[in-house]
Amino acid sequence: MSLLVVGSVAFDAIESPYGKVERIVGGAATYFAVAASFFTHVNLVAIVGDDFTEKDEAIFRGRKIDTLGLERAPGKSFFWSGKYSEFLNERLTLITELNVFADFNPQLPEKFRNARHVFLANIAPDLQRSVLKQVKGTPKLVALDTMNYWIESTPAELRETLKHVDILVINDSETRQLSNEHNLLCAARHIFKMGPSTLVVKRGEYGAMLVDRRGVFCVPAFPLEEPHDPTGAGDSFAGGFMGYLAGCGRSNDAALRRAMVYGSVLGSFAVEEFGPERLRKLKLQEIHARARHFSKLTQFTL
Amino acid sequence: MSLLVVGSVAFDAIESPYGKVERIVGGAATYFAVAASFFTHVNLVAIVGDDFTEKDEAIFRGRKIDTLGLERAPGKSFFWSGKYSEFLNERLTLITELNVFADFNPQLPEKFRNARHVFLANIAPDLQRSVLKQVKGTPKLVALDTMNYWIESTPAELRETLKHVDILVINDSETRQLSNEHNLLCAARHIFKMGPSTLVVKRGEYGAMLVDRRGVFCVPAFPLEEPHDPTGAGDSFAGGFMGYLAGCGRSNDAALRRAMVYGSVLGSFAVEEFGPERLRKLKLQEIHARARHFSKLTQFTL
Repeated sequence: MSLLVVGSVAFDAIESPYGKVERIVGGAATYFAVAASFFTHVNLVAIVGDDFTEKDEAIFRGRKIDTLGLERAPGKSFFWSGKYSEFLNERLTLITELNVFADFNPQLPEKFRNARHVFLANIAPDLQRSVLKQVKGTPKLVALDTMNYWIESTPAELRETLKHVDILVINDSETRQLSNEHNLLCAARHIFKMGPSTLVVKRGEYGAMLVDRRGVFCVPAFPLEEPHDPTGAGDSFAGGFMGYLAGCGRSNDAALRRAMVYGSVLGSFAVEEFGPERLRKLKLQEIHARARHFSKLTQFTL
Repeated sequence: MSLLVVGSVAFDAIESPYGKVERIVGGAATYFAVAASFFTHVNLVAIVGDDFTEKDEAIFRGRKIDTLGLERAPGKSFFWSGKYSEFLNERLTLITELNVFADFNPQLPEKFRNARHVFLANIAPDLQRSVLKQVKGTPKLVALDTMNYWIESTPAELRETLKHVDILVINDSETRQLSNEHNLLCAARHIFKMGPSTLVVKRGEYGAMLVDRRGVFCVPAFPLEEPHDPTGAGDSFAGGFMGYLAGCGRSNDAALRRAMVYGSVLGSFAVEEFGPERLRKLKLQEIHARARHFSKLTQFTL
């Protein structure tokens, strides 16, 4: 089944102890779409400026990604610049230029409106809701990401949008900020009252945790000796997670667990090189091999 | 098979957001011995002052713990006082009074000298080595814990002791400090050159990770809504881990994985109440039930 994603497609400048890139295609929807396209057909809704060339768009080519919803507007594309600390565990944002993204008003092409699986990447909550309104009927699964900025500046809009969300996919600090609870189990109970029935907490080098009414499932981060660039790791996780669920068409406990593993697999590949470079070269067989490696990493018999 | 442990038996004063105790039996060897005794016979070597009464010693009674090696010296027992932050993730040591522990010179009773499984809890590295020298022949498995103080103040002594150690059981900051490597896989490779062939990294609320030449195994921390007191969690983990290995008499990959799970199970119970109170009341069937819960927490099929 196809998967609709709305979010940012951007240019990034990234510096880490492993190197520096001045301008590389990035944005949450980019990482998400590329990661998800290994499992399912992805319908992309985003906006870029006239500086986004055919060559830049090539990242979506040769994949199961429909870019009919990639709007082009006069002006420059969203630009983000950031620098990572020595051990990659801290990130300093140097520049955020919204550019054409400031006036983004996502319009779904008619053929995208039958979406049954929807991922609302990190954009303004009212825009996320406007996308949902354009979808015909009730989708099977709606997942959402957000960030501290929206939690602080548009809490009411976010609450309204969350009412229509099944799976909230955020990091641990966002979980604590949104719920006002430090303990993640208490936070989950709080968040369930807002609408989502499933909480996926991304914990960076510590992996990810899924909480729903059935219980908790934990998956570690794949141990890597030399991660190069954490940019897009969370979006790639979300892409692997939602891509797997849309691809298999199920969302029972076993499918959610597998989706968590595939999310972690995609997130782990994303950090191996700068920007989306590793994902560009990635092969499906490498994904399955690493998923089997996750079994070795976590499985035991009593 | 029996398991020899040498370490501290102490009195603790603990404050956390959940309450306060002025004086409770503690010490690494106490938590370790109680946790391990669910799986195997434990031979305890430690020192206490004449303030340590029959009533205090009752924590070891009715368990498979031999206290013949619990030396009594004139003076006061080791005393530690600490306070935890709001979310229990930071600990402030208020008082450390070594008392009789300052002159501890562990002597193994003759019947303890055939130990095949040895755990050297966090004491001076030269004392840890003196214990090993008293053991007849080469034990099957020697595990060691240490702390920042010994890594900084007696690095040469620690290096010498590590040559005789199979499994190093320390936390993540100690791992980084000892190896001078931030990445835990790089740290493990570094530590393998020092002697141990297995590294177990305790990561608190993020669980634990075992690294050996075969690869990596990760286990999460058991999600608890209301942990009360983290004191002794790491020692209880080590007790569950080594207790299981000594009890089953194997140390192959499957046994090590199970040991990691039982370590996490014991650590998770330890934090549920103040001091060793939860471990005192713990039943073997609760341990097995929580181990099965760890399966639900981590297992998936691809």
